[in-house]
Amino acid sequence: MPSQPKDLNDLFHETLKDIYFAEKQILRALPKMAHKANGEQLAQAFEQHRTETEGQIERLEKVFEMIGKNPRGKTCDAIMGIIDESKEVMEDFANSDALDAGILAAAQAVEHYEISRYGTLIAWAEQLGLSDAVPLLEETLAEERRTDVLLSKLALASINVKAAA
Amino acid sequence: MPSQPKDLNDLFHETLKDIYFAEKQILRALPKMAHKANGEQLAQAFEQHRTETEGQIERLEKVFEMIGKNPRGKTCDAIMGIIDESKEVMEDFANSDALDAGILAAAQAVEHYEISRYGTLIAWAEQLGLSDAVPLLEETLAEERRTDVLLSKLALASINVKAAA
Repeated sequence: MPSQPKDLNDLFHETLKDIYFAEKQILRALPKMAHKANGEQLAQAFEQHRTETEGQIERLEKVFEMIGKNPRGKTCDAIMGIIDESKEVMEDFANSDALDAGILAAAQAVEHYEISRYGTLIAWAEQLGLSDAVPLLEETLAEERRTDVLLSKLALASINVKAAA
Repeated sequence: MPSQPKDLNDLFHETLKDIYFAEKQILRALPKMAHKANGEQLAQAFEQHRTETEGQIERLEKVFEMIGKNPRGKTCDAIMGIIDESKEVMEDFANSDALDAGILAAAQAVEHYEISRYGTLIAWAEQLGLSDAVPLLEETLAEERRTDVLLSKLALASINVKAAA
């Protein structure tokens, strides 16, 4: 491995390691968020996304294989920071009617980080001619977007209303 | 100020402090990213967004005023993590043709964090009846989205192509 990565292949690989680490952190964070959430629908949404996240990790492992690398993560400061913020809101608003609104917002920050990263990885995979990787990454991106939309709907339909009660 | 914030007004205020801190960090990071970028169009996009960010900070200050609070930030671990990742890519790919692709991707992660936060703040402001705050936050959200789209266009039109050269 070069000590100084030089090309778009290296950048793709580094970013794949970043999101692989992030997905594994999210897999650990989601059950905690589901456990803390008061609303049943929100807890269910987190549980469902946890199952999806397992599939997303498997897809990333396939992409590692396609580029001839072992699946390995590297510390993703961004997701650590976003998850730290979700922990903070869960502590600070533990006994508050606004707790679920805060957890939901934190989850949307997670989704948006992933949407950004998968969008980038798809563009780079296309540029690099990694045509087998593109549909796998697109499938995950579609799931992240659906989760974000679902969370927005939950927020508007019930959680924000309850938070302001 | 209560030691344990309890309602959606508090959550709105805490999140306003979070994004206010984030915008100030971004204001400091953008000139560095513009300086490191090799491509003139990318550097210009960062410079332009820096000017926009100044306006966004002013809008946030108006929203603080609307809720009767002094504008004050609080450490936003998420943006610190995202900016740390941008520094890492600027170091690791300093002499690489893929540098601009890496910086641009980091900037899109920043934009997506902001899109998530402003989307949340708008929904909460509507719920709380802060009708004067909504158009200010919407104006900023539209700018963040435009910046994200502009960066995607730049990536596809030239920067990813150059990165893979």
